[in-house]
Amino acid sequence: MPLTAHDWPIAASVLNFAPADPGRGDWPDQAEDVLTEVADAGFDHVDLTDSWVRPGDLGPRQLDALSQAAASAGIAIPSISAIRRSVIDARDGLDNLAYSHRTLDAAAALGVGVVSFGLHQALTPAQREALWFWRVEGHRDPEDTEIFALAVRRFQELGRHAADLGLLVSLEMYEHTYLGTSASAVRLVEEIGMPEVGLNPDIGNLIRLPGPIEDWREMLERTLPYTNFWHAKNYSRDEDPATGMAVAIPSTMEMGLISYREAVKLALAHGFQGVICLENYGGDGLSVCATNREYLRRVLPRRADYALGVSRVDQQALVAA
Amino acid sequence: MPLTAHDWPIAASVLNFAPADPGRGDWPDQAEDVLTEVADAGFDHVDLTDSWVRPGDLGPRQLDALSQAAASAGIAIPSISAIRRSVIDARDGLDNLAYSHRTLDAAAALGVGVVSFGLHQALTPAQREALWFWRVEGHRDPEDTEIFALAVRRFQELGRHAADLGLLVSLEMYEHTYLGTSASAVRLVEEIGMPEVGLNPDIGNLIRLPGPIEDWREMLERTLPYTNFWHAKNYSRDEDPATGMAVAIPSTMEMGLISYREAVKLALAHGFQGVICLENYGGDGLSVCATNREYLRRVLPRRADYALGVSRVDQQALVAA
Amino acid sequence: MPLTAHDWPIAASVLNFAPADPGRGDWPDQAEDVLTEVADAGFDHVDLTDSWVRPGDLGPRQLDALSQAAASAGIAIPSISAIRRSVIDARDGLDNLAYSHRTLDAAAALGVGVVSFGLHQALTPAQREALWFWRVEGHRDPEDTEIFALAVRRFQELGRHAADLGLLVSLEMYEHTYLGTSASAVRLVEEIGMPEVGLNPDIGNLIRLPGPIEDWREMLERTLPYTNFWHAKNYSRDEDPATGMAVAIPSTMEMGLISYREAVKLALAHGFQGVICLENYGGDGLSVCATNREYLRRVLPRRADYALGVSRVDQQALVAA
Repeated sequence: MPLTAHDWPIAASVLNFAPADPGRGDWPDQAEDVLTEVADAGFDHVDLTDSWVRPGDLGPRQLDALSQAAASAGIAIPSISAIRRSVIDARDGLDNLAYSHRTLDAAAALGVGVVSFGLHQALTPAQREALWFWRVEGHRDPEDTEIFALAVRRFQELGRHAADLGLLVSLEMYEHTYLGTSASAVRLVEEIGMPEVGLNPDIGNLIRLPGPIEDWREMLERTLPYTNFWHAKNYSRDEDPATGMAVAIPSTMEMGLISYREAVKLALAHGFQGVICLENYGGDGLSVCATNREYLRRVLPRRADYALGVSRVDQQALVAA
Repeated sequence: MPLTAHDWPIAASVLNFAPADPGRGDWPDQAEDVLTEVADAGFDHVDLTDSWVRPGDLGPRQLDALSQAAASAGIAIPSISAIRRSVIDARDGLDNLAYSHRTLDAAAALGVGVVSFGLHQALTPAQREALWFWRVEGHRDPEDTEIFALAVRRFQELGRHAADLGLLVSLEMYEHTYLGTSASAVRLVEEIGMPEVGLNPDIGNLIRLPGPIEDWREMLERTLPYTNFWHAKNYSRDEDPATGMAVAIPSTMEMGLISYREAVKLALAHGFQGVICLENYGGDGLSVCATNREYLRRVLPRRADYALGVSRVDQQALVAA
Repeated sequence: MPLTAHDWPIAASVLNFAPADPGRGDWPDQAEDVLTEVADAGFDHVDLTDSWVRPGDLGPRQLDALSQAAASAGIAIPSISAIRRSVIDARDGLDNLAYSHRTLDAAAALGVGVVSFGLHQALTPAQREALWFWRVEGHRDPEDTEIFALAVRRFQELGRHAADLGLLVSLEMYEHTYLGTSASAVRLVEEIGMPEVGLNPDIGNLIRLPGPIEDWREMLERTLPYTNFWHAKNYSRDEDPATGMAVAIPSTMEMGLISYREAVKLALAHGFQGVICLENYGGDGLSVCATNREYLRRVLPRRADYALGVSRVDQQALVAA
């Protein structure tokens, strides 16, 4: 049975929480406090963004405490988002690859079904100082076919590991990387060519940029056939075509530039049946995500009798069923 | 009895839907799908914006299918908004006049009570390419008393036709036309001088413009005495008086620059008892309009015992009663 | 018992209402209309912003009418905000000081517990003409230790008067005054050095400014230990670090730059138990404040069993209890 508004896994990102310190003796309480706050905001599902805690760096007892904290909070963990650990980082690529493998193992231990990786790299000092990091030029993947091929090989390696564990890998779209345009992201995932490896069309990352942006509808039309996980967020945007001035502010999913009403229809037409992970960089991101969850439940199908298309990649809900 | 929050006709625009194709055999289904989606969003009333379907170009059976689709969806059609078909277009003015007459006939056939026309003309290619068309210079009505007089005569002709059919005509305020400032709009409607022809003070069109704007309160104070239909939307706006830089983003009615709480009070003081049609150009305009409908019902009068002013033009609710 | 979401006094500002005219015979009706509208928007508490009515300038019967209007409307008056009446105004400082004393007496007569004063001065003509007054350079307190000392002495004088009446004084943070940065505000309140005189960290005033701004979290960390009253509002903001261009638009507390979820946690950690007064300069500020009240009740503690820190100043809820 296809997913409906009532049972679709909609997870809150924990990106708005300060980094945890699982080395401290109170780690179980830290975890339970955060997960309870997420649950109290109205969520049944949480995405483990590794800016809060890195599951791949937790020992078995720390992982176990995390599982128990989720159980106590009454919240499920359907996904992990590992960010800024590019497997083609010139210096740390191999370390990041090893970290990514450990993250897959941790996902399996936690019963998580999908892990999102990306090619974005550490923020520069100037990015960290800015009000919004995306306003400042950061890392760019090189125009280099060998590096591109390396990305393909390393993601294939992660895909094989994920397949062995019964998991899916999703690749997050992010500016100025091989996942930074719809065309390049599709090319990457096609060259990887595995049903277990799909895209995470986090196009909120792309419509907030100061320069010219791709049309959001075209980006989704191209990438949704490969989508197996979805970071959803929205921005309001204005542009002056005469001067190139662009302004973007974090918005609710309902009010922002991307029509998630249309996006959901497109996603279903392409067979999407994966976790939707809500993110927001405004001040109280968790509350905005809770508002977005209510919105999303209004635009997701109410009944399971809709026409579901066929995805080009595996879908978690169908894998699990 | 004056209208209250409970019975005021608040219609959703269908401007966010892709153009329909009533020539196709599935036109009845197309119509029902769109109208059902509008109804599912919480609306009892829909405005037929002719960017979705042109009632004036439908045959009797197509109109009938539209009526039946509305009945099936459980939604009423109190208004039609015909846009970008200026009756003083240098090339297509007579065609647009004929189209406007056909639209009035279609309105009568559908049981629609008010039809909104405007003087805005087709978007230029540069406007169509921009993120927001209002950011790019488009058509401007000439400073020409003869063309102004032509507008008066043609709207009088439409007004007489509407009067014969028991309908009202409303003229939408839109930038850089004879309906582009409150003073010019009032002058136009006064020169037309018919109780069946009033204004549609869609000042959301005007407060989003990049250049200097009229004060929203003054615009409403001048135009509400002539208002018989109301396209309501809102924008958030910032301006730098030092550089002239202006930014406007589509907002909810509650959050934007115009206080619709005050605007509603002013409207009642001027005897307004017409359809309010909600529009929004953000991504998911229909959902924002649904949010705006709930907002509007909080600021409209709860009871019918309020002091209603006297309008200078006919009001649909009073005509119909 | 510490305050919870259920009993925390959350007041609406009346800054969005046009100035009242208590000299007119219908003053009781004027007052009841405004206070009923605030109550109808969902509020149990109202802040008497003196842009609507100046309690310090009301006679005993006018004050009495105001009290009765509040009783009829079913709304309590826990606070008064006196604005733009700086006690160090070069010309009107002594007048403003006398007005401030009268305002304290009026507060006592009305049963109000806290009065907020500030150092902001009258808007300039250019500020009054701008869409947003904060976009235009206005008054700046001089870098002058004697004037700073005068501010300290006059606020001490008001603090003693307040203490005699069993009231608290709160000092509103406002740009380009001695209360315009967190460091200067803390220095001022420390030099005043009275438990009855605290800060009103209205940092919404500061994060909307066109130039560089202090980090909102750092401002709150510094000022919340001294906070005894809180004007809460929020703005969405974008900045271009390359050009210095900044845009700020009035937003809801949930969507804007400041995380009030975090701010509330910090406030409790510093023992805050005072009135929260909601303000908004968007169009329909009262409705946005009503939305913000619902938001705030979601992020305030649900139960009274939380760990309350110790404030460096007196807290109204604890004084009253």
